[in-house]
Parts: sequence; structure tokens; C-alpha cells
Amino acid sequence: MAASGPIDDPTTDYFDPASDKIREECGVFGIFGLENAASLTALGMHALQHRGQEACGIASFDGEKFHTERHLGLVGDNFTGDDPSERLPGYMAIGHVRYSTAGQTILRNVQPLFSMLHTGGFAIAHNGHLTNAYTIREQLVEAGALFQSTSDTEVLIHLIARAKGGEFIDRFINAIRQVDGGYAFVALTDKTLIGARDRLGIRPLLIGRLGDSYILASETCAFDMVGAEFIREVDPGEVVAINADGIRSFRAFPEIAPRPCVFEFVYFARPDSIVGGKSVYNVRKRMGQRLAEETPADVDVIIPVPDSGVPAAIGFAQETGIPFELGIIRNHYVGRTFIQPTQQIRDMGVRLKHSANRAMIEGKRVLLVDDSIVRGTTSTKIVRMIKAAGATEVHFRSASPPIKFPDHYGIDMPNKEKLIAANYSLEAMTEMLEVDSLGFLSIEGLYWAMGEEYRREDAPQYTDHCFTGHYPTPLIDRDREMADGSKQLSFLVEVA
Amino acid sequence: MAASGPIDDPTTDYFDPASDKIREECGVFGIFGLENAASLTALGMHALQHRGQEACGIASFDGEKFHTERHLGLVGDNFTGDDPSERLPGYMAIGHVRYSTAGQTILRNVQPLFSMLHTGGFAIAHNGHLTNAYTIREQLVEAGALFQSTSDTEVLIHLIARAKGGEFIDRFINAIRQVDGGYAFVALTDKTLIGARDRLGIRPLLIGRLGDSYILASETCAFDMVGAEFIREVDPGEVVAINADGIRSFRAFPEIAPRPCVFEFVYFARPDSIVGGKSVYNVRKRMGQRLAEETPADVDVIIPVPDSGVPAAIGFAQETGIPFELGIIRNHYVGRTFIQPTQQIRDMGVRLKHSANRAMIEGKRVLLVDDSIVRGTTSTKIVRMIKAAGATEVHFRSASPPIKFPDHYGIDMPNKEKLIAANYSLEAMTEMLEVDSLGFLSIEGLYWAMGEEYRREDAPQYTDHCFTGHYPTPLIDRDREMADGSKQLSFLVEVA
Amino acid sequence: MAASGPIDDPTTDYFDPASDKIREECGVFGIFGLENAASLTALGMHALQHRGQEACGIASFDGEKFHTERHLGLVGDNFTGDDPSERLPGYMAIGHVRYSTAGQTILRNVQPLFSMLHTGGFAIAHNGHLTNAYTIREQLVEAGALFQSTSDTEVLIHLIARAKGGEFIDRFINAIRQVDGGYAFVALTDKTLIGARDRLGIRPLLIGRLGDSYILASETCAFDMVGAEFIREVDPGEVVAINADGIRSFRAFPEIAPRPCVFEFVYFARPDSIVGGKSVYNVRKRMGQRLAEETPADVDVIIPVPDSGVPAAIGFAQETGIPFELGIIRNHYVGRTFIQPTQQIRDMGVRLKHSANRAMIEGKRVLLVDDSIVRGTTSTKIVRMIKAAGATEVHFRSASPPIKFPDHYGIDMPNKEKLIAANYSLEAMTEMLEVDSLGFLSIEGLYWAMGEEYRREDAPQYTDHCFTGHYPTPLIDRDREMADGSKQLSFLVEVA
Amino acid sequence: MAASGPIDDPTTDYFDPASDKIREECGVFGIFGLENAASLTALGMHALQHRGQEACGIASFDGEKFHTERHLGLVGDNFTGDDPSERLPGYMAIGHVRYSTAGQTILRNVQPLFSMLHTGGFAIAHNGHLTNAYTIREQLVEAGALFQSTSDTEVLIHLIARAKGGEFIDRFINAIRQVDGGYAFVALTDKTLIGARDRLGIRPLLIGRLGDSYILASETCAFDMVGAEFIREVDPGEVVAINADGIRSFRAFPEIAPRPCVFEFVYFARPDSIVGGKSVYNVRKRMGQRLAEETPADVDVIIPVPDSGVPAAIGFAQETGIPFELGIIRNHYVGRTFIQPTQQIRDMGVRLKHSANRAMIEGKRVLLVDDSIVRGTTSTKIVRMIKAAGATEVHFRSASPPIKFPDHYGIDMPNKEKLIAANYSLEAMTEMLEVDSLGFLSIEGLYWAMGEEYRREDAPQYTDHCFTGHYPTPLIDRDREMADGSKQLSFLVEVA
Repeated sequence: MAASGPIDDPTTDYFDPASDKIREECGVFGIFGLENAASLTALGMHALQHRGQEACGIASFDGEKFHTERHLGLVGDNFTGDDPSERLPGYMAIGHVRYSTAGQTILRNVQPLFSMLHTGGFAIAHNGHLTNAYTIREQLVEAGALFQSTSDTEVLIHLIARAKGGEFIDRFINAIRQVDGGYAFVALTDKTLIGARDRLGIRPLLIGRLGDSYILASETCAFDMVGAEFIREVDPGEVVAINADGIRSFRAFPEIAPRPCVFEFVYFARPDSIVGGKSVYNVRKRMGQRLAEETPADVDVIIPVPDSGVPAAIGFAQETGIPFELGIIRNHYVGRTFIQPTQQIRDMGVRLKHSANRAMIEGKRVLLVDDSIVRGTTSTKIVRMIKAAGATEVHFRSASPPIKFPDHYGIDMPNKEKLIAANYSLEAMTEMLEVDSLGFLSIEGLYWAMGEEYRREDAPQYTDHCFTGHYPTPLIDRDREMADGSKQLSFLVEVA
Repeated sequence: MAASGPIDDPTTDYFDPASDKIREECGVFGIFGLENAASLTALGMHALQHRGQEACGIASFDGEKFHTERHLGLVGDNFTGDDPSERLPGYMAIGHVRYSTAGQTILRNVQPLFSMLHTGGFAIAHNGHLTNAYTIREQLVEAGALFQSTSDTEVLIHLIARAKGGEFIDRFINAIRQVDGGYAFVALTDKTLIGARDRLGIRPLLIGRLGDSYILASETCAFDMVGAEFIREVDPGEVVAINADGIRSFRAFPEIAPRPCVFEFVYFARPDSIVGGKSVYNVRKRMGQRLAEETPADVDVIIPVPDSGVPAAIGFAQETGIPFELGIIRNHYVGRTFIQPTQQIRDMGVRLKHSANRAMIEGKRVLLVDDSIVRGTTSTKIVRMIKAAGATEVHFRSASPPIKFPDHYGIDMPNKEKLIAANYSLEAMTEMLEVDSLGFLSIEGLYWAMGEEYRREDAPQYTDHCFTGHYPTPLIDRDREMADGSKQLSFLVEVA
Repeated sequence: MAASGPIDDPTTDYFDPASDKIREECGVFGIFGLENAASLTALGMHALQHRGQEACGIASFDGEKFHTERHLGLVGDNFTGDDPSERLPGYMAIGHVRYSTAGQTILRNVQPLFSMLHTGGFAIAHNGHLTNAYTIREQLVEAGALFQSTSDTEVLIHLIARAKGGEFIDRFINAIRQVDGGYAFVALTDKTLIGARDRLGIRPLLIGRLGDSYILASETCAFDMVGAEFIREVDPGEVVAINADGIRSFRAFPEIAPRPCVFEFVYFARPDSIVGGKSVYNVRKRMGQRLAEETPADVDVIIPVPDSGVPAAIGFAQETGIPFELGIIRNHYVGRTFIQPTQQIRDMGVRLKHSANRAMIEGKRVLLVDDSIVRGTTSTKIVRMIKAAGATEVHFRSASPPIKFPDHYGIDMPNKEKLIAANYSLEAMTEMLEVDSLGFLSIEGLYWAMGEEYRREDAPQYTDHCFTGHYPTPLIDRDREMADGSKQLSFLVEVA
Repeated sequence: MAASGPIDDPTTDYFDPASDKIREECGVFGIFGLENAASLTALGMHALQHRGQEACGIASFDGEKFHTERHLGLVGDNFTGDDPSERLPGYMAIGHVRYSTAGQTILRNVQPLFSMLHTGGFAIAHNGHLTNAYTIREQLVEAGALFQSTSDTEVLIHLIARAKGGEFIDRFINAIRQVDGGYAFVALTDKTLIGARDRLGIRPLLIGRLGDSYILASETCAFDMVGAEFIREVDPGEVVAINADGIRSFRAFPEIAPRPCVFEFVYFARPDSIVGGKSVYNVRKRMGQRLAEETPADVDVIIPVPDSGVPAAIGFAQETGIPFELGIIRNHYVGRTFIQPTQQIRDMGVRLKHSANRAMIEGKRVLLVDDSIVRGTTSTKIVRMIKAAGATEVHFRSASPPIKFPDHYGIDMPNKEKLIAANYSLEAMTEMLEVDSLGFLSIEGLYWAMGEEYRREDAPQYTDHCFTGHYPTPLIDRDREMADGSKQLSFLVEVA
């Protein structure tokens, strides 16, 4: 479900460092067995908001009817006012947040998706990407299936609708066995809350408990938000079915070595989340610590690129004893959209989201620490801002290795031609970023920060293809050169 | 596609005589072969607005892409500002208007519906009702079909998607052979504008021409609006396929005697439309003329219940020589919704939409003429208003026979228990309406006004079951007691 | 308070016959002594909606606080949902409706205006125009007054704020003695409902009673709407102060012969209203009757230009025995704004608001009756529509005399250069309208229809300067060439 | 211009630490002599957004007309899309941002205010509060002045409108000599950009230059945003008039020792701003440094209360060598409004804006550093959150002295009864906050951090009455017990 975000838009990137980040597509949340389930779901989605700011939705079931509500925008702007569970009553619910893109978003793609199947109502929300969705979709349309969205998730619903099986969960498992990729699903029938995770555990899904109720969520911070207790991860390849009798576990696939996505640690997950048993904040500090060892710098001050560079910068500063200072101030009040400035104004080098704290920079040798470098365009702008504030030297460090390969499992990132590290040498990049020195964490350093002794080259412990090119699954749609959904569905242009 | 309208709502009916009317479900319009087809379509839909004020939509095709736009509300409130064909480019388009109901309307049911079939994009709009839709729907869902609306129209799309056939038009005909009821469809593929009418011609569909372009519409007034010329009706049971080569005609069913709905003449069609070769205005005047013969009254003034009673009242007045006067003034500025008055205010007998023109009423014997009487509740209120304005006598005439039976072909009307003439004698009704005399046109009079010598009892020339109980087709869903769509789909409650 | 309406806009007039009408500026309503006064006021304003569709507002007082609410648009679109008196509590209230203009309207000019004076809160609503407002305004601004609107009404408030006097009503009278023109004011203090009418009674204001409460309104139809009884007119030059003790009456000016505006009968007032003791509907029928005598025509059918031409057409038909038919059908569902059609579509002669009822026209000699002719542009379009529908002859009659002079008392009309009768002979107009004959009611006929034997040339019984050029008051602002408010205030452009 | 904010609302404070902060009322910006002045103004206002998030407005002059646009909400949400200077053309403009309150805000109070004076158009924006505004207002209303807002700023406009004087600037100075309090004004006539600062310099106002243009702004960060150069502060008591000929300076008052508000350093100003020649970030670090000396703590980790506590926490950590960690994670995606949670959910201790980073807290002795303590309610909630995350000890430090007295110069803060330090001893507060130790910076420490050797008790260098009770000016309105504007103006309740 690749989509072109604002990353490629040269007219907007200049004011927003965050626009030069890769993006997680989604966060999911589900709960069974608590009155006002939708209100809890809204809170959990709020905690997962960093995983997607484009759109949000909730589906609930109240024993008789399903209720759904889907919106563009933030959870806190849409599930407001009266208690959401008044509009979405019920003791079971699922929710979804989706990443932010520029330009038009089609509401019909916002999740959860709901369908009335022969077996009853069914709602589903998805984090990830199915790598053979378009291939299957073609086959289904040929067989007379009507699609109502351009989402790969709908492919799974059609597979379920046509699946054979006694119990509903058997149909569900039957269906997910036909899809490939990285995914975490939460789903709702009129009896059961279902969770499913791809066989390699590329995308995260966790189980929590609140009183007698069970919760599914993408990150532990969602449990913290609602006061729930973290129980365990959904295992790679596991399907869980939760109802009044508790949790039933199914293995949809033969067991193989898991391989979760390392980018959850590098950038996506909230620093206060625990992923794979590790504090994300701590892992990031260790990245900064190791970075200090691998690529030291003789500077006066360590300045993080806010906010994602902060933990690594603290790690770097604590390792070296060089002072950590907030040399870049973030403006928290950036609106949803902002003035499209004239060229006159853009030429002034306006910086809407950040500004330099000149008193901490002037006359100093500065080291900037960021979590990663994607296209490098924003890094250059930040470097120039620091220089304009009077730094005598500017050094740059990325707390992750060079990003050289695109993703196909639900991460939104630019084409390979736009990934600076895929196209230029360290020397060339140093010049392009206009810095006195540039350094990246090594792959070994990344695995060290993760607590591993080394990367198992034949069977890597993590999904790390963005750095290494080792894709963990076949890429059927891509190999058929069909991955661009918008091309396939270009016949329809829905005007709002 | 039955829906409960405001007719049964005792809190709103008091201010709106029109609320006690039966309602046509829809109007359709289509055009092939003219630049800016969507703008013409908007104008045509505007002319058909009296057939549905709830919602409106347009689909167009520009040689490359389909475009759709659907709204709640009036054509003139939604297809405004810039030329609609800027948002909906193309040389072929279809449009749809839908009747007004109180309460929540689900946008997903607004037409045209669009689907991406194996054969390419397909848009369709429908006026009428399929009497076996729910039965087929059940079968389709069991076979794994996913429905995205509660509309009977979507059933047809699924049938087309699964139909066998070489050319698309064959699949289409294959599909409509499986459905029953009264319908007029306009549809769009990327090559062809399609029109189809049920085998009895219950619902109307006409062909017009504008330069080299062909137009399909529910009424001739839509042709007048855009300056097109009326060519002919689509024959009952005919399917027409219009493309750059002209019109191809197909017979989907063996020919039988047509039986168009008489209610188009009584109430639905605009007075300036020509239906079945007859001026609607003239037919209505003849109803009034005959009414004067059948049920004369010794009065001082003839007053129409605006606006639908006007032509019959003129006919009545011209036949008798009694003066015709506007004794009831209509307020044109009633907003979409209006104050929910307190009991205090309602008790004042407030009349938001109409008021009595006392100078024409006081001290006079008044004859009120309306096109029909449905529940009778509003008639009573009007009678009271006329009496309060000082009439010495009030007589009431309905320019159509007593309505005694519900419809199943796309007309929205109250349950049989609410139809006053289905439950009470003329005497009882006279008392309930609080009038000095009450009269209805006879069935014979109705057929006379239509220009027929008599009603052929064994094979009536018109669909007239509302008056006679003679339904022209089998009623499969009703007989299976499944006609209530909302019951079937009650699992889903979409919150806006 | 002259404003340029859509009348002069050649891009919009073609679809709306009503756009070629002159317009009353406003309607006013006030009530003292009834719980939920604001709800009654909303109903009364609804009945007066024909006097202004641009904007509406209500002010109420609940014994402690004033409440105001002002909107662009219709009463029925804005005072909806919950009972207005929940938001605007109190037992006294005033309301205002304002005419519809194209283009931007400044909400700050919408009435009632509210001010906190030294004597307490004060709300006021105005129908009419003060002919020396700009002259006084200049003096006030020079003295340090700050204006918050461009309304002439605010001038009066400043005069009150600076007036001397013991009781508030003395200050009020002191102030209105300084202004000139045609006006009807309703106003509210925390104790009293005030009504005032200009010394000639140019603009109307009436007193009604509902139980123990008193009501002020521009027309009797507002009394009918709320079930109130019409008591008497506010006399020309009278100020009434209504509180719990009843009505007190003050004479602000020496008594002179009244001279109400004849246009209330010709066009503005609702046909069911009683103005100056006369049924408006009856006066209009008499105009048609006299028109038939003065300018007979040998035709087959009388067709009114809807809706304002209907009563005169009925009068003409009854006088002559020629059949009256609805030959022009009005589309009631024209939205607030409508598509801006391309030249292609405009060239088709599209008619969004009306269409010809061909069956009543084809092959016939037609007489069209309208209430008046302003610019003549729309009349021409209607004539062409009737001809295109097959009329063999078209004759046109205006039920009022030729309009030759602009107004300065609250009627919105085009410049003299645009008034067709001010610039062309009957012959020339006959040609311009493309009709077989053209006729206007004579001044004598107009006075006859009003029930007068003749017009008293030295002291005309009615304000009739639009036909005669006899302005009833001095025109101070005009004579100083300052009448254009927008010029004076051009420094401020409020962006919405 | 006191207003009741969300601070006293027990239903909202629990989720937002920022809700327990005092608030600056406004930020102002003005520019003369640059094309597209409004766009630059929008950018400058964006940089000042931290000074007010409730509303924003711009006024411009284009040589012919004034243009104004005012909105509720953020600059970035309102001055978006097309370039603001297309709607607000001109080479001179002023802008205003206003603080955020809960509940209804009256748009008419949003600035800049515009008036058409005898001398021409005049727009003005204000940061601060006039302490004798209500007293003067009473006198003006008695003299017949009409007020259109409840703003103290309008009082000044009336004074200008009534002032005598040759040149406009003389009238302006004449008027500000009549008002008292703390203020920074920017104003616009059709020729001149005016800036004025109160005689003690309580509120800040600065002059910058961009090419040949001059800029006025509340903080230097606004100059940084648009690439302008900081020239100097407007002196206390100075009025500057900027036009094409440059800056003219006027002294409105005899010179006295300045006394700027110390709270700009403690909380209001952005850390990257330079106020009174000092880096705000550096002053705050020095507060933390001195705090470490005055109230040391034996802990494992220093955690700032984000975001305002960060610089002081860094200062504290650098002084002591104890690690600084982000132990509280802020959720950046809190919407404008949020769910009103049920009691059930509130009882869960939900934290919508912040969450504890458990990995940095569990098993540790934690020191929390905040910039100040107002009511203490939020501090308690944060302490509980840290304890719930497993801290073995929690210590709390305020980087400013105890707040004991209310403000009257434009700072929004709770009543004295709600200020915890005004009512409780250090011991009692330690218990109330449920901490192991509590410490405040001393007044001496505060002045040391400001770079002063000591506080001059007879003539303090800063306005510091919140800590000391030494108000720098008389408080005329307060002494007349009239300060509550809403009481005075309670007659009017404007319903949106």
C-alpha cells in the first residue's frame, strides 16, 4: 500500500525536518470485554498517534450491532466532546491510526474496514503491507469480486468471504495463509476479537490485560495510556482469538526464526515503549554511545535534531562528557497546513518548525545527532541554520547505518534514487551536507545496541533490508511490477 | 429500497402538507457525446429535482478516468460555483436525484454507484425497486460477495460482475433478466451509455437528442431544461446502448403489454412534462374537470391545495365557472430544517409552509382540491386553517381515487394501516376531515382523464395497484417477508 | 443603506426572473410579555421572510441579560433544531430579516444591532432608510464617535447615546427627531419594547396582540403565523413603548397627512397580508381587472409570470373570461447558489427557475401578466421562452405603471439608467421586449385599484415617486452626493 | 482583560500539565515598508505563537484600503493555503496572537481592532493590561461612547478618537498618557506604523530591520523567523512612529528606572529569544545551576517536566554531574479538544499529554525540575505518575521562587486562594505534592540568575510582584473592585 507522501514534494520539505523521515504506516488497537470499549480504544489510539496522523477509525460491537466511525485527522480532533462510546457503544472494539500524507486522501481507505459476510459482520484494521495483494486482487476481480477500496486489506476480507471452513477462525487462518508480507491485523466479529501477526514478526503486535479484559496493541505505550498490563507479544505467525472464555492461540504457519523490523527501534516506536523486551529509549541511547566510539568528534557541544535524535544525543554526550544542549528549538504550534510562502519568503530561509538557539551555538564547534539520514535535503538545511547561528564547525552523526534500499512491508519511504546513501559515498555526502565531518553507525554497532553480539549473516535476527538489502520474504507484486496501486485503479477518481 | 420517511413522524407533519404525500424515489439522467457532459447532467438533474431532494450524484468518464461526486441535498446546493465539468470532466455522464427523508441518510447509498469490474469501470443509477433483490442478495453473500451499500442497485452490479458473456452488454442483459420489479437504469462503461427499463414500463425512461448527442432522462422537462429534443420513450423491456456509432436496441424480455405507473400523472411528474405522449398538466386538468362532474359542489370559490392541486382546481373551476382563487399562500422560504417548536407553540396551530388568504375565504363556501389523500392528517389541518379563516362551508375533493394499497416499485408511502382510505368509509372520512362534503375521482374517471375509454380489468393499461390492489408483478421479497432492508443490515450502524 | 444587488450583474440575471425585481430591504418583528419570546419571533420572521432573505437576527432579554444571534441566510436554516428560546431566553425579543444580495455581505451589518449605553443595554432593528444618515455620521465621527458598522441604523444609536433626557423614551424621541427618511424601528431596552414609524408612514409597522402580550410586525401575515390578533397600525410619526403596564403612545412629530408606500401593494407585501386595511391580494386582482379594461388584448390564454403576477392575472382573466392557465412552471428547488454555467450552456437558453408548459402555449395567443417591469431584461427572456414553446402571439402587461425614478427609502433598485421605462417610449419597449403588444396600468388605475377616486396631485395619498418622481421628503445625503456608503467606508475591507 | 482560563476547571486540568501554568496574554508584530507585509507578519506571529494560541489576526494597509482578518485558533491553521498577502495586500501590517482559554471566546475581542476615525483608518494590537481601563470606560460611556468589544484596548481607541492634537501621533501620545498599566502596542494608520511601550517596560517590544524595512515584535525569535536583524528594544515609555522616512522617537513620559517583567525569563519567552540582552535559555540554565546549589538532592537521575523545565534541568544536571534523562515523554499529537472521559476512564489515571519513560525511572531516585509551581495540582499528578513508574524516591524543584501574588499586567493566573505557595508552608506543600523533598529558587537566586548582584529592595530591577507582592504601578480598577470585565458587561451574551 505504498503511497507518495510529502517527502518528494520540493515545495513543502523545506520547513519540516520531519518531512525527511521515513514513516510507519499505522498503529492498531483492540479490546474485548470492557464496557465503553470505544473510549478505551480512542485513548489507546491516541498513545499510538505517532504511528500515523493522517486518519483514524474505530469499530465496535454492542451485542447487537456494529458501529463504525472513521475520520481524516488526529484522534484528539475527532473522538472528542462526548464520550466516543456513546456513539460507538459496546464491550469490544478495534481502532486504527494511519500515517500522514500530503494531498488528497480517500476516506474509503480509512480503517477499520467493515463488511457483512455470510458469517455475520466483520471489521478489520491493519498495520503493514501484503506483498502479493495486487496479484490476488486481479484474480478476485476476474472471479466477479467488487472492491470498494484500494486497500490491500480488502483483499484479505474477500479471501475470508470466499474461504471454506467450519468455524470463522478457520476461514480467517485459511485466508491469511494466502497472503504474504509484513502485517499485524486486529479484527472483530460479533463474538471474537482476533489478532494476527506475520510469520516473521516483521510488524509488532502485543497482548495486554486490563482487569478481566484483553487488549491488543502495536506498542506498550498504548497499555500504559489506559493503565493496562503488558502480558506478551503475539508470536510471529500466531493468530489469537479472544472472547469471553479467554485467549485461544493458533499457529497459522510452520515456525521459523522471527525477524522483527529494526526500524521500530531506530525511529518508529515511542521512546517509552518496550519492544521485544527492550526499552526503545535505552537502545537509542546505546546507539548514540556506540556512535561516539565509532565516530568521535572534537566539539564543544552535542545538539540533537529534535525530537528523534534526542536519546542518541544524550547517549553520545554521556559517553563523551561533552555538554548536551537544546541548540534547536521546536515550535509546537505548527498548524495542520501552513502558508504557501511566496518565493520571496522562501528565499529568506524561513524555518517554521525549528529555530536555532543562537546562544548555545555561536562561536562553538557543534555536533548534530539525528536518528537517520534519508534524502539528506533536510539535514543540509539544518546544517545551514546552525552555521548561520554562528557555529565555527558543524559535524553530523546518524545513529543508524546508511539507508540504501526501499521497504515493502508498510514503511513509506522515497525511491532508491532519492536515498542519499544509496547513491553517494561518505565523502560526497559530507560535501553535500556541507559539514566538517559525517558519521553513521555501523551495522555491527546497530546490532550491538540491540544487545546482540553480532548479526547472523545467514539468518539475521532483524529485518534490516533498508540497510543491507536482505529482504526477508519474496516480493511477488514488485516482481510483477504492479506495486503501484494508483496505476491499477486510475480509472476512478473520487471527487470528495 | 423502502425507507421510512417523515410521513410517520407526528412531530413534523403538522407544518408541511407535502409531508403527507407519497414520494417517487428517484430521477435519472444520462448523456453521451458532449463536452462538459457533467454540467448538462447537473442541469438535467435540476429539472428532475422534484423527483428527489434527499441526495444527488454524478459520474462521468473522460476517455481515461471515471469521476464521481455524490452529495446529500439539492443539485443547486451541491453542483455550484465552478462548472461541475471541471471537477467531473468528460463527454459522457450519468446523474441521479433521490427523494427526501427525515433522519439519517447513509451517503454510501447515494448514487451513481461505481465499481471496477473485470471488464473495466462501471457506474449505474436507478429509479425504481427490485422486488427480488434481498433474495438474490442472500445467495450472493453466501457465495462470498461483499456488499458496500444497502441498495438493491448493488445487487445488479454483483450479478453483472459474475455474469458470463462476450460483450459487456450481454452480461448486462444477462443480469437484468435475473431481477424483477419496476426500474429505469442509466449506466456508464468506458465506451457506452446504457439505459434499461423494466418489461412493463412501470418506471419511465426517455430518449432525447441535443445536436449529435443522445440523452436519457426520466421526464421530458429535463430535455426542455437543456434545450434537447424528445425522440421517443425507451420501450418497456428494452435495453439501449449508446456510443459514438449511435443507439443499439436490445430486447431483454419477450414483449408483453406495457403498464406504466399512473401515479406519474397523478402526482410525480412535473406538470410541464409529456408522459406517454400526454401533457401531465392537461391530464390533471381533466381529472379536475371530471371530478366536477362526478362530485359537484355548491360553493363560492375553488381553492387548490398548493402546489399539486392547482391544475385539477383550474379544471374544476373552468368546468363549473366558479371562481378559482389562491386561498392558500405558500411560503417559499422554508429552510431545510426548522425550529422544533415547543408544545406551547405547536398548540398555537402554527403553519410554517402555508397560510390562509383570509380575504378570499371569509364568509364564503370553499371547495378545496388536492391531487390525492394519503393519511388525511394534513388535509384535516388545512381544513381547520380554512375554517379558522372564516369559511362558512368547507368541501374537499381528491383528484384521484382512494389510495388503499401500498407500493413495491419505488414509491415511498405509509403502511396500509396509515392509509386513511384503506381503513375508513367515505362517511367516516368526511367526519375525520371535518368537511361538509368529501369526494374522490372514480377509477373510471381516472382512466377517462388518461384518455382511455375504460379500464381493461383483465389487463389494465396502467399500474394502478395503489387504488385497485392489482400488482403487476410477483413480489418475491415481500412474500418471504424480507422486504425490510434495514432489518437485514441492522448489524451495521455507520456513525457519520 | 443602498446596496448593489444581483440586478446589475449580467452573469446571473438570465436564470432568475426574480432578479429583475426591486427589493424591500427588511422586515421587523417584536414581542413583549411572553415566555419563549425568541421562538415566537423566529416564527414571525419566517412569515416575513419574503421581505428579506439575506440575513436574519434576534435579540432577547431575559430579565438579566441580553442575548443576540445573527446569521446570514434564511430564518428556517438558522433558527433550527432546538428551540431558539433555549439559546435566546426571555420574555421580550425583536427580530429582523434582510434582503438578499449577491456577493459578500458583512455580518457586522446584520441586525438587530446591540449596544451597551449608559442607560443599559439597547437592541434595535430597522426597515427603511435614513436620508440624512451620512451627513450626521460625518458630524459624529468628527466628534470622536467610533462606528462599528456601515449601517444607517447605527447613526441613530449614537444619537440616542448622546441624547439628553430624563426617561429613556425621551432620549429615543429626541434622537429620531434628528433623522429623516422612511423607517420602521423596533427596539428593546431592559424594560421596554419600542416601535417607531416615520412621520409619513412610508414604511409599515403594525400592532398585534397574543393573549396579554403585544406584538409589533411589518405585516399582518406575521400575526397570522403566530395566531395573534391584529389591533391597529402604528400611526405615522408615532412612537409606542410597550411594557408590563401596556402601551404608551408618543407623537414625535406634528401630525401631517400620511403617505404610505404604494409598492407594498404592488410587490412587497404578501398577498395574504392586510395593509392599510386592504387585502393585498384583492388590490392586486383589482389592478389586473383595471388593466384588462385599460389595455385589453385578444388572446387565447392568460399566463401569469410566477409568482408575483398571479393575482393580477386572475383578476384580468375573471374580468375578461379568457382562461387563466399555469403556462410557466416554477422550479421550487433552486439552491442557494447554482452552477456558474459555461458560455456553451448559457447559449442553450437554460432556464433554471422556470420553464414553459408547452401544452398550454403551443399554437396559442398568449397574454403574460407581471406585477411590474424594472429593467425589462428578464421580461424579454420570458417572452422568448414563451415563443420558443410555440405561442403564435405574445402580449405583455404590467399591473403597475412604468417605473421611472429610483427610491431612497429602503427599496433596492437599479440606477435610473437601467430602468427601462425611464429611458424608452412604449413603442421602443414593445420592440425591446419583442412582444406583439405591451401595456402598463395607469397612475389613475393604480389609485382606483387602491380604492381611491383619484390621486390628489398636491398631496398624494401614497408614496409613489418611483412612478411619478414626487419624493415625499428632502434627500439630504443624495443632494450632498454622499449616498454611496461603500465609497465613504472604502478604507475597510473586512476579509471574512 | 482578565479572563478565566481552564486553570480552574477540575474536569480538564488532569490531563494537561500546561494547564497549570500562568499564561502571557499576547504577542504583537508589525512591519513597515515591505511588499507582502501580511505574509511576513503571519510568519512573525507564528514565531510568537507560544505567547497565545487562542486567536490571531492581521491588519494591513495597501495605500488605499485597510484589510483585516481575525480568527480563533492558531496562525498556522488560519493563515494558510494561498499567501495571506493576497487577501491582505499592502506594504505595512500588524499582527496579534492571543492566549488560549477554554470555553467560549468572543471573536469581537480578537485583535487587531480597527476603527475609522476622523483622521482616517486606525488598527491596533495590544499585549498587556491597562489597570484603569474600566474606570475610563465608565466615563466614556457616560459621555455617549459606544463600545463594540469588552477589550481594554478599545478604551484607548476612544481616547484617541476624542483626543485633541495637530498630528495624529500627538493625539496618540495624548491618549496613552491617560492609561496606566503594562503594555506594548503596535498600531497602523494609513501612513505610519506605531509602537508604544509602558513607562516601566513591563511588557516587551523590540525593533528589528529587514533590508530597508522596520519591524516591531514582542521577542527576537520573531526576527529570527523572518531573517530580520535585531536593532534595539523600544525604550520604556517610548513611542516610535515608523514611515518611509524612518523612525521617529517620542517620549510620552518623564524617564524613570525601567522594570521589565521577570516572568518573561521564568516562563513566557521562547528559550532562543534574547530578552533585555540576555539569552533566555542561559538564564534558565543558571536558575537550574543555582537551584542545585541552594537545594541539592541525592538522586540518580534528573528529569525535566517538559518542556518548560528542560533548560533548568540541564543546568542542574551539569552543575551536579547527575545524569539528565527524558523520563517524561510528551505526546505531540494532542488535538484541540479531546474526549471528555467518563469517570471510569478518569479513574484510570489516564495521561493524554505525557507518559513516564519507565526504563529511566524504575528503581531510581528521581529529581523532577519544573520552571515554577502555580496551583500544585498538576505537580502532584506528575509525581504520582513517576512513582507509579517505579521511582524509589521523588524530589521536586521549582526553578523560580514561590508564586504568592496575582498579576494585573496581562498575565492570566488563578486567584490568590488557588496559588499553593500563597497558602501553604514548604512543609505542607511537600506533603501535598507527595514528594520526598521540595525546593524553590530564592529571590536572591533569581536575581543572580538574571546577572544581578542583588535585588534593589527600594527600586527592584524587575517587575516581580508575583513573588514579592511589590506592584510597580497603582491598580485603580482593582481598588475600585471593578476589575472583572465580565461582571460589568454581563448584559450582553452574544450567542455565536
